[in-house]
Amino acid sequence: MPRAWTLVARPQGTPRQSDFALVDQPATPLEDGQVRVANRWLSVDPYMRGRMNDVKSYVPPFKLDAPMEGGAVGEVIESRAEGIEPGQWVLHMLGWRDEAVGPAAAFTPLPDLGAPPQAFLGQLGMPGMTAYFGLLAVAEAKPGDTVFVSAAAGAVGSTVVQVAKAKGMTVIGSAGGAEKVEWVRSLGADAVIDYKAGSIVKALGEAAPEGIDVYFDNVGGDHLDAALAHARPRARFAICGMIDVYNDAKPTQLKYLARLIGNRVTMRGFIVSDHMGRAAEFHRDMGAMLADGKLRSEETVHDGLEAMPDAFLGLFSGGNRGKMLVRV
Amino acid sequence: MPRAWTLVARPQGTPRQSDFALVDQPATPLEDGQVRVANRWLSVDPYMRGRMNDVKSYVPPFKLDAPMEGGAVGEVIESRAEGIEPGQWVLHMLGWRDEAVGPAAAFTPLPDLGAPPQAFLGQLGMPGMTAYFGLLAVAEAKPGDTVFVSAAAGAVGSTVVQVAKAKGMTVIGSAGGAEKVEWVRSLGADAVIDYKAGSIVKALGEAAPEGIDVYFDNVGGDHLDAALAHARPRARFAICGMIDVYNDAKPTQLKYLARLIGNRVTMRGFIVSDHMGRAAEFHRDMGAMLADGKLRSEETVHDGLEAMPDAFLGLFSGGNRGKMLVRV
Repeated sequence: MPRAWTLVARPQGTPRQSDFALVDQPATPLEDGQVRVANRWLSVDPYMRGRMNDVKSYVPPFKLDAPMEGGAVGEVIESRAEGIEPGQWVLHMLGWRDEAVGPAAAFTPLPDLGAPPQAFLGQLGMPGMTAYFGLLAVAEAKPGDTVFVSAAAGAVGSTVVQVAKAKGMTVIGSAGGAEKVEWVRSLGADAVIDYKAGSIVKALGEAAPEGIDVYFDNVGGDHLDAALAHARPRARFAICGMIDVYNDAKPTQLKYLARLIGNRVTMRGFIVSDHMGRAAEFHRDMGAMLADGKLRSEETVHDGLEAMPDAFLGLFSGGNRGKMLVRV
Repeated sequence: MPRAWTLVARPQGTPRQSDFALVDQPATPLEDGQVRVANRWLSVDPYMRGRMNDVKSYVPPFKLDAPMEGGAVGEVIESRAEGIEPGQWVLHMLGWRDEAVGPAAAFTPLPDLGAPPQAFLGQLGMPGMTAYFGLLAVAEAKPGDTVFVSAAAGAVGSTVVQVAKAKGMTVIGSAGGAEKVEWVRSLGADAVIDYKAGSIVKALGEAAPEGIDVYFDNVGGDHLDAALAHARPRARFAICGMIDVYNDAKPTQLKYLARLIGNRVTMRGFIVSDHMGRAAEFHRDMGAMLADGKLRSEETVHDGLEAMPDAFLGLFSGGNRGKMLVRV
């Protein structure tokens, strides 16, 4: 019998296991135009935390006691839709469950880029597009720029590092702990800050004595403040995420915010779905970088549908290197 | 004997009278190409606080024990330069003193817009250009937008209110105390918040139930946070000043910063000198608004060179309505 994770209580602060329940789903016969997919890979992403609150946002909140949603890749096992055949691999948003049923339009065949299917949940999917368009379109980063990226060992951050290097930029990443720092350096970063080892403002000043042109923010808080402290004139900040505040209502404290003025800094929040119309351009450029050996990706994999909440919670305790995934 | 205000100590926090001294200046015979101007009006502006610190910024710090600088308007009383005659009125940056001597290029004849000379220190000068280009170029405000402006009773803010109304926008201002609130309303603002009367977040939510498209920030702090709380999708913030932190090193606390992301807000710091090349366009458009009776300006005037520090300090205690000036 198919099963799905439902949200049974809206988390206060950091979510707990008891906020989620794995529930049997009724068998659903297919209607005309529908497809049944056996999910093989499920995505967990920080933005999902926002959907657990009952707050109007750019994506609607999860409904209580209904299956949650999220990125997933799977194999078509039954089809009553023209043009989709059993055996085909597809990308879709009916994650947090082992079997997905929906209209054919909800499922996208995977582009043929010579990459494994789960890459379309990571570097070649939403996190990769976030990195690519955040860096190149939102922050308008260009060759020669000095780029600072926080959470550089994460799915988005590690792709920012590599795209920036491939495009001729100087890159400073931040990550927590010696092992992740070493990994980010191995991706090509010119310098890596261990944010657990001391003041980020001080470390960034040493890593970028001339300042930074671009900041790609996944974290907020002290990282953002350090970027403000070291922003060069006309620096551009792409504000992608603030994992620091997702579970915590404490205000962000910024000592260096007024430097925005004299340095004419632009800070711009963005969400990747605004750039979905440019997916073909993204796949073409990333496919070329992949073929040239300029992109490496890493996955932190949990096994079994049961592991979904653990994998999700691991995002907030720094439990992943690269893309966090669940293999069903 | 001419006199000038010098900075004798770099202020810690709010400046004190003892940080300044009024000092006799040696009589200076004119060299070829030089002009002598009797200053009639002196400007005090919040940005001057930054120049009192010994910190690299977009304008160099004031030197200790030397005459300070700032906007001034005066009458030429002696000239050894071609094309500048005694009796002519000029705008220049050798303020904080009663007599200015310098090369002809340092003095700009006042444009003929039918306005009193001191208007070129206010609405038709640097504060007016700050309002005009901050609103229209930096925040890209357009007819139909809902605009929130803090310190709306100040020299910059009161001009933002009037330019925005003249261009067909809905305007919400904030000011401190009933008298200033009433005055900002009389300038045409659709709603005015008294920031001394309670929560700015709550008041802005009531004044703009559909949210704001543009925020013109002169204050920072709680005003900025309220603007973040009520930003509509794709809102633009022009960050002009943060008078809240000029005298105070306490960090800015923002509860609503992460809303930048979902609403794709752009925050952009700016300084008016980047737009000086467009002064002719500014004078043309403002001159037309003035002729149409769409611009009113108010001045808070202190008398006598001796009053400069009082006038300057009054900027930080809400002591002015409209442009703060000293008449020499």
